[in-house]
Amino acid sequence: MNKDLPSVTVSRLVGYLRVLTDLEGEGVVYATSERLGGAAQVSAHQVRKDLLLARVTSGTRGRGYTVAILRRELSGTLGLTRRWRVAIVGMGRLGQAIADYPHYKGFNFELVCAFDRDPHKVGKVIGGLPVHPLEQLTSRTTELALDIAFLTVPVSSAQAATDLIVAAGIRGVLNFVPTAISVPENVRVEPVDFLAGLKRLAFYLQPHDEQLAPAS
Amino acid sequence: MNKDLPSVTVSRLVGYLRVLTDLEGEGVVYATSERLGGAAQVSAHQVRKDLLLARVTSGTRGRGYTVAILRRELSGTLGLTRRWRVAIVGMGRLGQAIADYPHYKGFNFELVCAFDRDPHKVGKVIGGLPVHPLEQLTSRTTELALDIAFLTVPVSSAQAATDLIVAAGIRGVLNFVPTAISVPENVRVEPVDFLAGLKRLAFYLQPHDEQLAPAS
Repeated sequence: MNKDLPSVTVSRLVGYLRVLTDLEGEGVVYATSERLGGAAQVSAHQVRKDLLLARVTSGTRGRGYTVAILRRELSGTLGLTRRWRVAIVGMGRLGQAIADYPHYKGFNFELVCAFDRDPHKVGKVIGGLPVHPLEQLTSRTTELALDIAFLTVPVSSAQAATDLIVAAGIRGVLNFVPTAISVPENVRVEPVDFLAGLKRLAFYLQPHDEQLAPAS
Repeated sequence: MNKDLPSVTVSRLVGYLRVLTDLEGEGVVYATSERLGGAAQVSAHQVRKDLLLARVTSGTRGRGYTVAILRRELSGTLGLTRRWRVAIVGMGRLGQAIADYPHYKGFNFELVCAFDRDPHKVGKVIGGLPVHPLEQLTSRTTELALDIAFLTVPVSSAQAATDLIVAAGIRGVLNFVPTAISVPENVRVEPVDFLAGLKRLAFYLQPHDEQLAPAS
């Protein structure tokens, strides 16, 4: 039933979890919905509504939520207390940068291996990951017990690589490629869109008077 | 006054713009708020409310918005009709992958140059970008007329590099580093958070029964 949480609610829960993790790191014991909302850039009302939907323990009036408990509960709701096995599909510069990147420390995402079709990369260990030939994606997935694929191939190969990922039975794709990909209904794609943040920046940086000028 | 648009509204406008660009590419002439909302995963009511806030031309009952006009207007509102000059700060694998990546085609973001402190990179052209020494960031910004910095340094250098960016008078930072950075109020930071999408994936992939189990 939690599966029915709207996508935007899930995004906000992910935001609260980040705030809670920071607060716990700073030794904060209690936090009100006002404080959580302030840090996550949403209203206190929205925080309370979202946490109610997520069916976590409610806070105490005045003192608020116990940070450590709420963080653990939210981790559970978000599926972050189990391990997820991840493969990088495409070991170009982006794939390699991601293999190197310290984003995954402290989370239950385990980079298991990579796939590529470049014979110069296949069979090597790059960024700590063994690189398998792309065509083995379907045959080795069960053995490797992969849950999630990071799609980091060139745009021109994105759909073909996605079809292999789907055929391999992997049900989650984090799509770093700036193009839409088609998957069946039982596969979930989350796009990583660098440009979205960049466009938000442009909005905030433009001078006030340009905003009032007619769009060209 | 548009500057007062809530951050979440700006994010949704960016989403509508992406949908409109796709529709225009497919030759679609008119689109209702229902259609835009369906593609952007928000309600038709939300679409109408956001577009009202953004003060763009309203649609026609029944037929909806004219796709090309609305796209142009939203581009203007979001500050995407002027050119933005961008530097990559940190030319490790991630910086290089971003320099290579075809995200920026068709948008008015111009990658101008890169900065790094590695003497093996400085003075070279990498990914099509001249690499300048990091310590010249403050002295060369006016000459280079930079608007935005992509921060792609290691976590340990993130704040020091940010301080240089701020001292250089750059007012927008797209932060690819998985750590919080401090900036003065007149500088805007937009984080690019790979993990947020990954956590959303985990939520949707977990089996139903695990969601109902108590959090560990």
